[in-house]
Amino acid sequence: MLIERTAIVGGGIIGRSWAIVFARAGLPVVIYDQLPETRASMRERLAEALAQSAALVGDAAAQTAVLDRISVADNLAQAVADADFVHECIDEKLDSKVAIFRELDRLAKPSSILATTTSSFPVSTFAAELPSRNRCIVVHPATPPHLLPVTEICPAPFTDQAVTDAAFVFMERCGQVPVLIRFEQSSFVLNRLQAALVVEMLRCLNSGIISPGDIDKIISQGFGLRWAFLGPFEGVDLNAAGGIREYLERFGFIFDDMARQNGHLGAVVTPEAIAMLDAYARAQLPLDSIGDRTAWRDRAITSLRALKNANA
Amino acid sequence: MLIERTAIVGGGIIGRSWAIVFARAGLPVVIYDQLPETRASMRERLAEALAQSAALVGDAAAQTAVLDRISVADNLAQAVADADFVHECIDEKLDSKVAIFRELDRLAKPSSILATTTSSFPVSTFAAELPSRNRCIVVHPATPPHLLPVTEICPAPFTDQAVTDAAFVFMERCGQVPVLIRFEQSSFVLNRLQAALVVEMLRCLNSGIISPGDIDKIISQGFGLRWAFLGPFEGVDLNAAGGIREYLERFGFIFDDMARQNGHLGAVVTPEAIAMLDAYARAQLPLDSIGDRTAWRDRAITSLRALKNANA
Repeated sequence: MLIERTAIVGGGIIGRSWAIVFARAGLPVVIYDQLPETRASMRERLAEALAQSAALVGDAAAQTAVLDRISVADNLAQAVADADFVHECIDEKLDSKVAIFRELDRLAKPSSILATTTSSFPVSTFAAELPSRNRCIVVHPATPPHLLPVTEICPAPFTDQAVTDAAFVFMERCGQVPVLIRFEQSSFVLNRLQAALVVEMLRCLNSGIISPGDIDKIISQGFGLRWAFLGPFEGVDLNAAGGIREYLERFGFIFDDMARQNGHLGAVVTPEAIAMLDAYARAQLPLDSIGDRTAWRDRAITSLRALKNANA
Repeated sequence: MLIERTAIVGGGIIGRSWAIVFARAGLPVVIYDQLPETRASMRERLAEALAQSAALVGDAAAQTAVLDRISVADNLAQAVADADFVHECIDEKLDSKVAIFRELDRLAKPSSILATTTSSFPVSTFAAELPSRNRCIVVHPATPPHLLPVTEICPAPFTDQAVTDAAFVFMERCGQVPVLIRFEQSSFVLNRLQAALVVEMLRCLNSGIISPGDIDKIISQGFGLRWAFLGPFEGVDLNAAGGIREYLERFGFIFDDMARQNGHLGAVVTPEAIAMLDAYARAQLPLDSIGDRTAWRDRAITSLRALKNANA
């Protein structure tokens, strides 16, 4: 399932960002938006975004080369007619998704993948009735995708495995970091993680224990500097000689206590969770390399702080 | 309340890290640990940590200058006798805190501040009976403090305001970013934020929807790249033309839904919360500067990704 031509439906911030992702990877992109003024200003807005991300794209000549791969269509049929990969990026309303996917099912090549950038709606909620529903899949980015690589891939139960595999390969080819959402739930995983953090921040704010500015600093001047390099699990893996297994066996009660406060029945730090995390951590880092990895982390954080100081 | 001499009780990872923070800021530090082998290896371990953070400390000569401000005492009385600021960094057990603070109350100068680096125990839980309890205060860092600047300051109800103020000024002088925890609760705020995120990660992991590696990537290849520069609240402030007020009015239901799932009674996105966050956001950024700030953010993220690529 070779992807050679792409189309983007919806020329807002996300649509434009995906256009840059595909064009930067060398693919031709046709982008369509229903508003004439959006189509008219498209090139200029893309040029601005490319200039802001020069360190990832290259100089003015490189930016122009990327820009020149992107064309603007003034009707949907023309936009998607030749595309192998269509990315729907219109408004986040279920009836809009239903309507546009009915059109795409009709207009796109039978062999194309129909992807949606939705942050909320699993494919089953809007494409289950379509004749070619087997090629529909969620490809949901961290925002904006041309800067943040992680991208959730969530197939419906009726999505072909070959389509899921092709979406993965395509994302990697474009420099993204695809992650598999194995079954459908609203808001998938990425937005749930941010929501969990923000809910606790709001609870603390509402209690009066801390100010908004101070609570933002806890992240931007604290965890954010670690999490730019290491996810939370691989991070705590460095905090005990026995890795994450030891860390959870000693400190896991902190998470169980919070889960219980949040109305969770039973532990979250289960023997199965510890085993899964231990297997994951040890597969990517032997215990006796924890010291080296910690040193790497500290140098990375130091470099990031120096970068922040230089760009304040 | 001028702080000229410092003492650290407990020579583990955190104690050594605080020694670097104080010495790097030009202050003399006496550090004490009850284990002879820890005292013996102290200078070597400090030298290693300084070398790893050279970008924040300076060259070999600068590192030696910092190192030479740190001396190792072999008894507690000698360590704290002249200190204006004593930072307790021993083990995280309540009876240990009770015992050591009883000693410090007796041995330290009456005018000195007695701080604890505890992540769990409010001062009231171990110092309420002490004659000079008014000078006791929590100064809890993100770990390790010589790399991550955010530091929680949590006074007890009986802590003097002048002590809280002096701790704040001292932390700023040392290059840290102090935040005020206005009243005591176990685990303060910083560790609760990480726990809230990790609990949701564990729930997702336990449901089977995503693998450990993929869920770590959602942070390290997604949000972590944003949160290295902007806390979550100032981050979403850029996601709507009307700033965080508009963002919460449109999307706040996401957080209320999650809070409800977590057993919270009532909304977290209250009119009061919106007003507080709107006032905070608009005080630091006019609405018409959101575009400029977004461009700055995108350049910062781009630089961070370039740094990560160079140091992979």
